[in-house]
Amino acid sequence: MSNEPRVALGIDIGGTKMAVAIVERGGRIIASDQLPTEAGRGFPRAVERLVDASRGLAFRAGIAVADLAGAGIGCTGPLDPRRGTINNPWTLEGWNNVDIVTPLRAALGLEVRLENDADAAALGESTAGAGRGADRVVMLTFGTGIGGGIVLDGRIYRGVGGEHPELGHMHADPAGPACYCGISGCLESVAAGPAINAAARAIGLADGREAFALAAAGDERASGVIARAVSATARVVWEIVHSFLPGRIIFGGGMMDEHFDVFAPEAARKIAAATMVPKERVTVARAALGNAAGVVGAAALAWQEPGA
Amino acid sequence: MSNEPRVALGIDIGGTKMAVAIVERGGRIIASDQLPTEAGRGFPRAVERLVDASRGLAFRAGIAVADLAGAGIGCTGPLDPRRGTINNPWTLEGWNNVDIVTPLRAALGLEVRLENDADAAALGESTAGAGRGADRVVMLTFGTGIGGGIVLDGRIYRGVGGEHPELGHMHADPAGPACYCGISGCLESVAAGPAINAAARAIGLADGREAFALAAAGDERASGVIARAVSATARVVWEIVHSFLPGRIIFGGGMMDEHFDVFAPEAARKIAAATMVPKERVTVARAALGNAAGVVGAAALAWQEPGA
Repeated sequence: MSNEPRVALGIDIGGTKMAVAIVERGGRIIASDQLPTEAGRGFPRAVERLVDASRGLAFRAGIAVADLAGAGIGCTGPLDPRRGTINNPWTLEGWNNVDIVTPLRAALGLEVRLENDADAAALGESTAGAGRGADRVVMLTFGTGIGGGIVLDGRIYRGVGGEHPELGHMHADPAGPACYCGISGCLESVAAGPAINAAARAIGLADGREAFALAAAGDERASGVIARAVSATARVVWEIVHSFLPGRIIFGGGMMDEHFDVFAPEAARKIAAATMVPKERVTVARAALGNAAGVVGAAALAWQEPGA
Repeated sequence: MSNEPRVALGIDIGGTKMAVAIVERGGRIIASDQLPTEAGRGFPRAVERLVDASRGLAFRAGIAVADLAGAGIGCTGPLDPRRGTINNPWTLEGWNNVDIVTPLRAALGLEVRLENDADAAALGESTAGAGRGADRVVMLTFGTGIGGGIVLDGRIYRGVGGEHPELGHMHADPAGPACYCGISGCLESVAAGPAINAAARAIGLADGREAFALAAAGDERASGVIARAVSATARVVWEIVHSFLPGRIIFGGGMMDEHFDVFAPEAARKIAAATMVPKERVTVARAALGNAAGVVGAAALAWQEPGA
């Protein structure tokens, strides 16, 4: 139908800032804005500011809110996509089981969908970034934690009961530290930002940043710290290749933006060693959209089948 | 539609024997037969005998072949479901890249679908066995190798290019032996029949069977051999829970038929330790259909969407 709306609203909610964008179906951002989250100042206030920002954005873009295909929200979890509730008092102070979908739907007069931010980012990269053209995409986002998003045939994959899998907590290093997830040595416990910082400090460095820099300059002990995270990541890549067997594995997040070339070769070597799967069809790619993946994927939710 | 065929033909091809069955849509077997594979006596002969056995079976069941919804084949791989070819000269002597779908389709006048036997078994258990009622099912079949099958919303999951993932080759034991898959310590290298046999012999026992018996009687060294396979299995269960996050994980194959109770508690303990996923929704179950899973799942292929 030629009258079908071709733009949607994407909202990305993080611990410190929120982004809103009006995005074309193909993933092009028409207009975007950003505002501080200030979760601690109350959830109703945040919703109100999101509504104002969205309306303002649409106005500036010359688009009537009613002409949008819908709105999608990617948010740092835990959250419940089916109920539309966020329950993340750790990162979003005071947001205990808050329903964000109902008030936004009422205020904007649009269908609103909520997803985990790692899933939204994976959908964004699949739609318009490093996952384009692949019908099996797995994205790992490296940050304070390590989030995983799986997109199959353009739809976010969910497990039993619509729940979000946690790829970042697969086994990755037999000698790794205990994690709150329930095992020792999961990927997050070895390769997330804080884990690399801690390992760097343990050998007397200031932080992970210094470890990356010294390792690049050939320092042996710093290289050991980095190698551990690199090898843990490659190991989880192997698990992904032997489970979802995707055509594209995307590494995202600030650390990968900067250090993709440190991580990718080892992952590629691991894949190249595989004999039981069509390894030549699997590639590891750097996320292409940066921070924009969140809003692009959130907007793409407007075109996902309900309940998908 | 009341005229829609409610029965289909299921064929299960293994290294030593082949089974044919006429199966209702819900998974009930109406009639079945078995014949030796005798792969080495030629592929055309095997096809001819399958056709004769299928026609004979339909006749005895009082069903016209033309009234069947279609035929499905589960076969020991490697194979290519899209091309309909089997390429497994290792287990099926002389069957190098043979097209089984075209001659069967011509001889029976039915649509014919081909799948990996682990996938067919998983579909069978999902349709009529231990996976009933779950929309996310992962099955591990323990035998000479360890095969994995994934069924999502009643459809066999495939990776890039329609290829079959290899869950049995995920990392499972950091100290495990080298496997032909490309790593050391994959699940198959530690928990498949031959691996347990080898570990049993290494401590002076006759085989895995003796190790299971002695371990049950409290023998410490035999318990060590079994514990290693049990712990490797639990570890891969953790990976499955954090990737596909299925509601049902099924253990199948002869060894699990006999020793499910040795493996299941450790897998359940591992799941119970998880904090990031809805562990209360995930159960480990023993395969319910035994050898029949293959033909039941193969028949169910007749109702899968083409290309699914």
